[in-house]
Amino acid sequence: MHRDRYRLLILLGVMFVGLVSGNPKKTSRNPNIIILFMDDMGWGDPGCYGNEAQETPNIDRLAEQGALFTDFYSAYPMCSPSRAGLMTGRLPIRTGIYTNTHFGRNSVFFPNVTGGLKAEEETIAEILAARGYRNKAIGKWHIGNTEESHPMNQGFHEFFGSNGNHLGPHDNINTPNVEVFRDRDMVGRYFEREFFMNLETGESNLTRLWTEDAIKFIERNQDVPFFLYWAADGTHTPLGAAKEFLGTSQRGLYGDVVRDLDYGVGQIIAKLKELKLHRNTFVFFSSDNGPAGYQGLESGSAGPFMCSKITTFEGGMRVPGIAWWPGVIKRGQIEKEPATVMDLFNTILDITGSEVSNPERPLDGQSLWPLLIDKPKDATLKKNTIFYYRGDGLFAVRVGDYKAHYWTWTLGERFKNIYGDPCSGQYLENFTTDTLTDHNDEPFLFHLGRDPGESYPIKPSTQEYQEQLAIINKARDQHVQSLIGDIGEPQLNICDNGILGWSPHGCEKIDMCLPPIEHNPMPCRWFF
Amino acid sequence: MHRDRYRLLILLGVMFVGLVSGNPKKTSRNPNIIILFMDDMGWGDPGCYGNEAQETPNIDRLAEQGALFTDFYSAYPMCSPSRAGLMTGRLPIRTGIYTNTHFGRNSVFFPNVTGGLKAEEETIAEILAARGYRNKAIGKWHIGNTEESHPMNQGFHEFFGSNGNHLGPHDNINTPNVEVFRDRDMVGRYFEREFFMNLETGESNLTRLWTEDAIKFIERNQDVPFFLYWAADGTHTPLGAAKEFLGTSQRGLYGDVVRDLDYGVGQIIAKLKELKLHRNTFVFFSSDNGPAGYQGLESGSAGPFMCSKITTFEGGMRVPGIAWWPGVIKRGQIEKEPATVMDLFNTILDITGSEVSNPERPLDGQSLWPLLIDKPKDATLKKNTIFYYRGDGLFAVRVGDYKAHYWTWTLGERFKNIYGDPCSGQYLENFTTDTLTDHNDEPFLFHLGRDPGESYPIKPSTQEYQEQLAIINKARDQHVQSLIGDIGEPQLNICDNGILGWSPHGCEKIDMCLPPIEHNPMPCRWFF
Repeated sequence: MHRDRYRLLILLGVMFVGLVSGNPKKTSRNPNIIILFMDDMGWGDPGCYGNEAQETPNIDRLAEQGALFTDFYSAYPMCSPSRAGLMTGRLPIRTGIYTNTHFGRNSVFFPNVTGGLKAEEETIAEILAARGYRNKAIGKWHIGNTEESHPMNQGFHEFFGSNGNHLGPHDNINTPNVEVFRDRDMVGRYFEREFFMNLETGESNLTRLWTEDAIKFIERNQDVPFFLYWAADGTHTPLGAAKEFLGTSQRGLYGDVVRDLDYGVGQIIAKLKELKLHRNTFVFFSSDNGPAGYQGLESGSAGPFMCSKITTFEGGMRVPGIAWWPGVIKRGQIEKEPATVMDLFNTILDITGSEVSNPERPLDGQSLWPLLIDKPKDATLKKNTIFYYRGDGLFAVRVGDYKAHYWTWTLGERFKNIYGDPCSGQYLENFTTDTLTDHNDEPFLFHLGRDPGESYPIKPSTQEYQEQLAIINKARDQHVQSLIGDIGEPQLNICDNGILGWSPHGCEKIDMCLPPIEHNPMPCRWFF
Repeated sequence: MHRDRYRLLILLGVMFVGLVSGNPKKTSRNPNIIILFMDDMGWGDPGCYGNEAQETPNIDRLAEQGALFTDFYSAYPMCSPSRAGLMTGRLPIRTGIYTNTHFGRNSVFFPNVTGGLKAEEETIAEILAARGYRNKAIGKWHIGNTEESHPMNQGFHEFFGSNGNHLGPHDNINTPNVEVFRDRDMVGRYFEREFFMNLETGESNLTRLWTEDAIKFIERNQDVPFFLYWAADGTHTPLGAAKEFLGTSQRGLYGDVVRDLDYGVGQIIAKLKELKLHRNTFVFFSSDNGPAGYQGLESGSAGPFMCSKITTFEGGMRVPGIAWWPGVIKRGQIEKEPATVMDLFNTILDITGSEVSNPERPLDGQSLWPLLIDKPKDATLKKNTIFYYRGDGLFAVRVGDYKAHYWTWTLGERFKNIYGDPCSGQYLENFTTDTLTDHNDEPFLFHLGRDPGESYPIKPSTQEYQEQLAIINKARDQHVQSLIGDIGEPQLNICDNGILGWSPHGCEKIDMCLPPIEHNPMPCRWFF
């Protein structure tokens, strides 16, 4: 008994030294990892990013106690490609999460798209699973409709959520309501039974369901390292918030949802603290792309940035990025280094001392860990280059504070007429272009420090323009070079209503099977 | 000796009780007042308001330790009228700081404007002087060129700064360089000798001079209540920063200046702490109007708001507002109530238990004190209505979260061609209008909570529009009613180069007198 106590003290001592030394590799076990990944939440939405309404106390507290990245980017200005970037640490052009049916056109995994993330792509979940982590994905997956792309086949031991987003309601005749899975079994459909969303009142319990499941997962895994991917999608339309938040925000229903999500974040962090796991858990908060500005008042805030989701202007890809790990990550840190969700892949490798199976496979991120811990004097970080893709088109590149636009496009007219304008209230001549516009002869160049709003192009006649564009052109050429032999087969070219969730595995147990229809694969029609 | 110690303890005890009770009237002496008033600094410039560069640690600390107002407004979208509003607690239309030569046109006290703040207007400095305060104005005054409008005739015991702004350099032949005063004596001219600004390098020591003088003033007045109006104007063009800040900001020269000013704020606060005055000093940080967007890269950030200085869109008048008083104002408070610089007048009355000489004279503000101290349950605050004037034209009115635009105008074409566009990168059809546009038949209506960027007008056919516009129309009518008999004689109608600072009092002592020219009063030509 005494000897055991002695051993425990030594163990605790070792853990403590590991933690305060800031080197997580020295901790006695691998730290837990939680990624809180929002859907269409803008850079300007959390209070700590300056939102006028200041309604996110829990998210703000993460920043107060951790590190806030001012120049954080998604991997892509839309959902599916961006999430694939997070999971693999690789740009969508490499993983195949794009379409090449038309140059420079966006695509996402609507439920009838036949592709998905390929098995040969190695996800961060797979790497952590191999290290003994218990992994769970909650909420929106949206990285494919194939069997191999299912989260349970991409490294997660548990899954509670949907392959798609919660668009709807559908009629269950021409289109089935999107199905919700628990692990491999369908357990319901959006808009039905416990997964209800009331489009009239704006009430939904989805965020609550995702939160409760996250908390139970943490409780069950107090004694093993875990990886929780909490992809709560409340800020994606159709918007829905828990009843107690309806009408409480200054910002309307969208703000109610943000408050609901912020409350969920608070619950998760509170649980970590209650179980005394907070000093052994790396938490990162971010979003999959900029706000869905074309939704008008049902969208978030891009802060001072130009345009929003779907576009390669700053508003499309600049997102919140907050790292939290009390006692390890320096409190109240402001990090200005450009960084991306793909960097999280390398960062988690670094934190856990893991390695990829194939070191030859190109990664597009780098570990942010040297920035987050107290910096040793010799800490160096390769300056990040940001690549702004639209489909198979490399539209813009940022190196340092300078960003060059080779192509511009807001939205196709058809999309704009149906949905709305991603640049409402914003306009710059020949830049926020309604049609795909080629600027390769004379790219638009901006200094994002002096001009974060991309409103004052640097004149091509200046020395600054010539010098900086040469640097960016070189970075672009090197990047294009790196793609040789590593361009993924496009996964978003073929659509087939036959693959919709008519009768997924498990539907019979809950009496929710629908009669399947014939397969009819045809080219998807992407128009944005 | 023992008895003295005992007395001291009682005194300290009384002070302590006064302070923690949150009722400043119970403090043993009147608290010091410091207003840190920036020039053309935008809502989006301080880090605590979300600026991407996060370069204002000292200003941010004020917010962390005090109260940050999200919906704070200047009294007017340009300098002189706004500053008159701060000093008098009254809208410029009442104090006469406007022109009526053309409807809805802006004007400021260029050095040849013959008018000024009238003696019958009661300034907050006059009220504090009557209570025994020692008052000093440092930096930019800009509320008139008449003798009666000089700060020394408007309640200040000391003055170090200029009546105008630091535009220039001039040739001292057709136009004299703007003169700098110490109290009533001219002590130099901008661009010359110690008041140098190097337009090539961007170096200027003005902020340093204003800071050093503020610190000396505080040191000299440790034992009497003082009022310091620190109107540092570094963020007004021509921009200039101290040498050690040049090239240090991610934001270019404008950012260097912001860093210089932030350093100055830090020095002033450090001096308060060093002298143990911080728990007896009310500090308020704000700006005179939105950023000078038409200056392009030489301007600040309006954050997510539409357009900038000179306009009645949100970017023209939404400014930072931070209240600081350790131990009295609640730490880390976020205050969403709309408030204005005119409210500071009433707030200071409230804090010091002062009263205006003529209670019949209308004031346009209200005390913010009930918001800042721990709120008693019965604390009520009349909801602020915000009036957006351009000259003699009431262009827009905000009640609650709703704002109606009766008139819109960005800038006259002449101004735009000479200077630039206050809405660069922003555009909304028939709203950001190049010419003066009358919307009285169907005002633009926005919900500033849901749509702070004024990009999604509420449709006139909706019930929401009808109901809210009726409320705003009523507020407008009541306001117009309140102006009867209280419209000030316009002070910015007549210009005369004969009144320029050719040979002000004191010029002979420093050998800087210039030969005066003949008086030649004529109507000023306002075109913006």
